[in-house]
Amino acid sequence: MKLNKTLLAVAALVALPTLGWAQDAEGPVAGVNAASDTSFILTSLLFLMGGFMVFWMAAGFSMLEAGLVRSKNVTMQLTKNIALFSIAAIMYYLVGYNLMYPLGSWAIGSDETGGYLSALFGVAVLEAVGVTADGLDDYSYAATSTDYFFQLMFCATTASIVSGTLAERIKLWPFLVFVVVLTGFIYPLQASWDWGGGFLESQFVFSDFAGSTIVHSVGGWAALVGAIILGPRIGKYKDGRTVPMPGSNLALATLGTFILWMGWFGFNGGSQLAMGTVGDIADIGRVFANTNAAAAGGALTALILTQVLYKKPDLTMILNGALAGLVSITAEPLAPTLGLATIIGAVGGVIVVFSVPMLDKMKIDDVVGAIPVHLFAGIWGTLAVVLTGGYHGESTLMGQITGIVVIGLFVVVTSAIVWLIIKATMGLRVSEEAEVNGLDMAELGMEAYPEFSKG
Amino acid sequence: MKLNKTLLAVAALVALPTLGWAQDAEGPVAGVNAASDTSFILTSLLFLMGGFMVFWMAAGFSMLEAGLVRSKNVTMQLTKNIALFSIAAIMYYLVGYNLMYPLGSWAIGSDETGGYLSALFGVAVLEAVGVTADGLDDYSYAATSTDYFFQLMFCATTASIVSGTLAERIKLWPFLVFVVVLTGFIYPLQASWDWGGGFLESQFVFSDFAGSTIVHSVGGWAALVGAIILGPRIGKYKDGRTVPMPGSNLALATLGTFILWMGWFGFNGGSQLAMGTVGDIADIGRVFANTNAAAAGGALTALILTQVLYKKPDLTMILNGALAGLVSITAEPLAPTLGLATIIGAVGGVIVVFSVPMLDKMKIDDVVGAIPVHLFAGIWGTLAVVLTGGYHGESTLMGQITGIVVIGLFVVVTSAIVWLIIKATMGLRVSEEAEVNGLDMAELGMEAYPEFSKG
Amino acid sequence: MKLNKTLLAVAALVALPTLGWAQDAEGPVAGVNAASDTSFILTSLLFLMGGFMVFWMAAGFSMLEAGLVRSKNVTMQLTKNIALFSIAAIMYYLVGYNLMYPLGSWAIGSDETGGYLSALFGVAVLEAVGVTADGLDDYSYAATSTDYFFQLMFCATTASIVSGTLAERIKLWPFLVFVVVLTGFIYPLQASWDWGGGFLESQFVFSDFAGSTIVHSVGGWAALVGAIILGPRIGKYKDGRTVPMPGSNLALATLGTFILWMGWFGFNGGSQLAMGTVGDIADIGRVFANTNAAAAGGALTALILTQVLYKKPDLTMILNGALAGLVSITAEPLAPTLGLATIIGAVGGVIVVFSVPMLDKMKIDDVVGAIPVHLFAGIWGTLAVVLTGGYHGESTLMGQITGIVVIGLFVVVTSAIVWLIIKATMGLRVSEEAEVNGLDMAELGMEAYPEFSKG
Repeated sequence: MKLNKTLLAVAALVALPTLGWAQDAEGPVAGVNAASDTSFILTSLLFLMGGFMVFWMAAGFSMLEAGLVRSKNVTMQLTKNIALFSIAAIMYYLVGYNLMYPLGSWAIGSDETGGYLSALFGVAVLEAVGVTADGLDDYSYAATSTDYFFQLMFCATTASIVSGTLAERIKLWPFLVFVVVLTGFIYPLQASWDWGGGFLESQFVFSDFAGSTIVHSVGGWAALVGAIILGPRIGKYKDGRTVPMPGSNLALATLGTFILWMGWFGFNGGSQLAMGTVGDIADIGRVFANTNAAAAGGALTALILTQVLYKKPDLTMILNGALAGLVSITAEPLAPTLGLATIIGAVGGVIVVFSVPMLDKMKIDDVVGAIPVHLFAGIWGTLAVVLTGGYHGESTLMGQITGIVVIGLFVVVTSAIVWLIIKATMGLRVSEEAEVNGLDMAELGMEAYPEFSKG
Repeated sequence: MKLNKTLLAVAALVALPTLGWAQDAEGPVAGVNAASDTSFILTSLLFLMGGFMVFWMAAGFSMLEAGLVRSKNVTMQLTKNIALFSIAAIMYYLVGYNLMYPLGSWAIGSDETGGYLSALFGVAVLEAVGVTADGLDDYSYAATSTDYFFQLMFCATTASIVSGTLAERIKLWPFLVFVVVLTGFIYPLQASWDWGGGFLESQFVFSDFAGSTIVHSVGGWAALVGAIILGPRIGKYKDGRTVPMPGSNLALATLGTFILWMGWFGFNGGSQLAMGTVGDIADIGRVFANTNAAAAGGALTALILTQVLYKKPDLTMILNGALAGLVSITAEPLAPTLGLATIIGAVGGVIVVFSVPMLDKMKIDDVVGAIPVHLFAGIWGTLAVVLTGGYHGESTLMGQITGIVVIGLFVVVTSAIVWLIIKATMGLRVSEEAEVNGLDMAELGMEAYPEFSKG
Repeated sequence: MKLNKTLLAVAALVALPTLGWAQDAEGPVAGVNAASDTSFILTSLLFLMGGFMVFWMAAGFSMLEAGLVRSKNVTMQLTKNIALFSIAAIMYYLVGYNLMYPLGSWAIGSDETGGYLSALFGVAVLEAVGVTADGLDDYSYAATSTDYFFQLMFCATTASIVSGTLAERIKLWPFLVFVVVLTGFIYPLQASWDWGGGFLESQFVFSDFAGSTIVHSVGGWAALVGAIILGPRIGKYKDGRTVPMPGSNLALATLGTFILWMGWFGFNGGSQLAMGTVGDIADIGRVFANTNAAAAGGALTALILTQVLYKKPDLTMILNGALAGLVSITAEPLAPTLGLATIIGAVGGVIVVFSVPMLDKMKIDDVVGAIPVHLFAGIWGTLAVVLTGGYHGESTLMGQITGIVVIGLFVVVTSAIVWLIIKATMGLRVSEEAEVNGLDMAELGMEAYPEFSKG
């Protein structure tokens, strides 16, 4: 995210004398300052708007994945998606948020230290940071409740990325156990290294505005490791050929893509983390416009490339091209011009078109194309930060590579351990019979489209 | 809703001397006060955002119900949903809003008394309350137009709840006649007793933040009475067994649930009814976070319970579990901690899992499970207010029960009368032949999926 | 849009002395004025919210059209929709925005003159208008980035309208070439005549709040000309009869309608173009409420009329009735009362019910009904402005007719030229075989629902 929260708190301390003076001397009522109050409200509102837009992405992943799996696995895919979001909500509350912001939310010296876990049946928590009975105190910035809501959605997004890759063959409960670890521990730990003010931020000036690496690649790495350990679907790779297994409902897949595209305005725009000044809102506007441009660039590139390469445009590639464009611009959606943003997104589209068949050649079976979209385009987007220097203005190729490698290694190692433990204990994969007949009837006894006969 | 509007007006009177002084003496331009103007704008904006999010719930109900009925009744279910929303919009305008806020919108002493009904071709109405040509006057709080927009959506939601339960057998026009009475009279009358500043509020301190009882249970009671009078679908209960009639499209049902979940942030968050202060936005943030936590709790509980009870997770139960979690937290989404909110939602999930088969045992045929979700979880949520005391801090079990019983009795009696009159005059139920062949061809001559052959 | 931007700049000049005084003398920090800053932020926020809601309409058109074509053409329709939006995004950036606001965005005297095209790899552009390092300067109003984002979505909407009419027979690439010209040139040129401060605004007081003519009729005219040049689908008109070709998925079509309805709040509400004052937010509230009322009026009228005329309500007519209601109120959603708004929308519903069969009699094959909805109801809505005088208070029937005719002629002539050139060079229509077998397999080699056997 743009603002390092530790730095922010320091900045608040520095700025305070002036603001305090303004409040004390000029406010219409003692202790109340209209400008500061309004800034606090607007930034909190940004978190809420961004938060519900990123929430909406959970629906987008559900529809995208439901559309791209075969009809015999749709109920399972829907079940996984709603369950993983719910688990993320609970794990991020129980563990993740405090792990990610180890100072007990980001208010240095706030009474909040220790987190809200302490009071299950106590008074309402999620207090506005730095708000006392007398008004705003020195560290005021935004309501903790709104920040929590916003950050939670990022954690859930990470888990959503994994479910698509592993579709059509992984068992429900083992997958959900992985989600518990991912959302409660793996995601928040690595996120704290940059967004929580950790060493990637402070020592390497690693710059990842809204999470090309911290969200998308993390999900992508976990998916990649899972796909390798799980193996491809039965019959997917046969006699050296890749057998197409087309999605059952491209209308849903397209709807999912539009939902994700829409939600991404909140994902990237909200990551400005402030809406209380003229400069902030202008920046958010740039982020919105650049995010849209990158998605358009990715979609059009995939359209043109599949026309040129295969003589026929491929809708699923176009959808993934748009998503890859979105992932690519996520590490730095503010600094580029509209033209550069379009190009950064277009490169994402190129990556998807070439890496989807490449993965198939390596017999890594990624049902929905999440690894090219979220991991490969995420790496590209994180590197592309150096084209503009990022919001710090001083991000370097080395710093960016360091972040990519450190986070990548951490996620690969930890998720491999977790996947292997689950495999050894609960087993990961459904029986061959269940896979052939579809997970819906075998594991859930419930078809998504029970009345439509299969052709 | 959180703020009783009568109390609010009184509070405004009390606060006014100070505010007035602030405006007159300190504003940068005479008659204009930045802080008050901004507060007015932000609260109005909350209503608009909340309003369009609750509007979105109409789409959610449509998709949920279209997914849970059999394909031969999908067109009818869609038709009912778009028609009922349109009727609600017109009835709430013609009658409901003025009935619900009998003072002619909530501006005591405002020129608005008498409502905007008086001027069909006159000047634009829906004036901002208390805004004169010179700026804000003493009662300023938010624009009436935005409040109207927000409140209308709640009225429409109540009607949406009814349509699912009665699906697959009720005739179109009789259903729509019921909607006319429900949205024009039954809903606004009972809502006025609490939210309009009536006796449930003033005498019993009945506390229902966003409408577990006033919206959800009201819809649930009307649906229950309708289901009993209408009787179950042909073949649903046979030889003492309940015959499963699975929904035709679980992807749509899941989409509908995600839409409702998203819209609920506006439903509960908007019911804070104010966004002009630091405290209000922090509260809205808590409401968002708690609403999400309760939904997650409900979904996960239903997932675990159906696994334990039936050895297979049941997606429709999980969806209804999430919705029951949302209904449960609606009576008090602000005061609980995140942990308690999760638990309140989880109890909603438990209620759904156990009461769906219970209704079937009683041969009450609720096609989509709206009675467990909206009525039973609504009652639970209204009682759960006493765990925290509600936003008044002094809500009692007796007061809550009084509200539940009074509103329940009123809706049961009035809706029974209306259903019986309709049954005696127009008839409620389609012919046996039409029901077997599906309402789409019989009543509308139009299939929802004409090309997909039925298995 | 409501505010003519040239006039706005002039008004800013007039207002400035006072505001400037307020800023210089009373701001808590020199050069910063809370009220102005807040107004700037809120108006920019309106553009962002309006923008993402209108973006959402692109998903609505996609679902509406995917639902109303036959299943053999669904993939193609989805491909066209995501491609046309992406093209609009790039063309409006490359050409359209600067063409529409020839002063180089609407900041007279701003450094922005010349547009942001100059700096592909340069520093971030889309600067906030009138913001200098020292704070807001004299022309400050909103962030250019947010205005650009909002305006772009209107341009894309115009293209979305065309795709539905021409579905099931037009080739992909020729259609996309037309979109390039429409979004890069035709739309922005004519929009500049009114919204860009051109002669329709200044000389004829032509009044089109959010684009009944400038967006919807423009799309409708382009679609009409295309439909005539392209000809009807094979077998649509046979022996003097119109052969029904029912849509393959009415659930998607209904979802699309709800999405459009929701997005329209942003379309019309955002066209207030300002949210920084009490009066503006109250106006936006009225716009929301009236927009909703008109949609409800259109839907209910179509419901009742199809019941009366055909003895069976027709869901596709109801959906188009709602959309026609929305188009009808778009030219003036602010001035009417709620009652008048409902009636204006209802007339839109009447227009749809009668003009759909009329077009069929003329053998103009409009697959989704976009010409009645967007062109005919758009003309009606633009004329209906005189019922209230419009926001200028002085719009005349002659002025409105002038705008309708001038823009209509321009679009008919230019789009005819473009369609004919494309027809002569690339060809417009797929082969007979491809049309009969469906465009999905013939042109894309990919079915939308590959597993569902066709009845």
